[in-house]
Amino acid sequence: MTWHAEVRVMLKPSVNDPQGLSIRGGLHALGFDGVEAVRAGKLIQVRLEAASREAAERAVDEMCARLLANPVIEQYAFTLTEALVAPATR
Amino acid sequence: MTWHAEVRVMLKPSVNDPQGLSIRGGLHALGFDGVEAVRAGKLIQVRLEAASREAAERAVDEMCARLLANPVIEQYAFTLTEALVAPATR
Repeated sequence: MTWHAEVRVMLKPSVNDPQGLSIRGGLHALGFDGVEAVRAGKLIQVRLEAASREAAERAVDEMCARLLANPVIEQYAFTLTEALVAPATR
Repeated sequence: MTWHAEVRVMLKPSVNDPQGLSIRGGLHALGFDGVEAVRAGKLIQVRLEAASREAAERAVDEMCARLLANPVIEQYAFTLTEALVAPATR
């Protein structure tokens, strides 16, 4: 079975986010005065083969812990959906 | 009113994604052989003041078009939720 995982990786709330601060500065400079705070993170879409939802969840969770996120400063969450029709191009 | 916008910025499907390819290579090297494809994008959380949902939507859409995404190679989407209780620290 083919699965689509969508992984969200954000800096932990206690960690300084210079990219977010820089974006907020840019938005203020463009006149968006209503912007109060900005946090920047990563969105990673993974298509994978796995025999079951449980196997896919285990695999994605391990990918996050080992490569996609830095557990010291980042937190992650993901959603998993089954791809009902396999894409034509692999 | 305070709003939370969550902006997702991804490269258009037709655009080559070297960061995604690199992540896929890393996952394969770690033994995640089931991984078929990876796309990498940005997740940007914005807290803003706006008088109404319509005003907030307009503002965030304009932020995306002008700063957060590069419309030539990226596509974006966002969700907007009202912050019922204003955070203590601004």
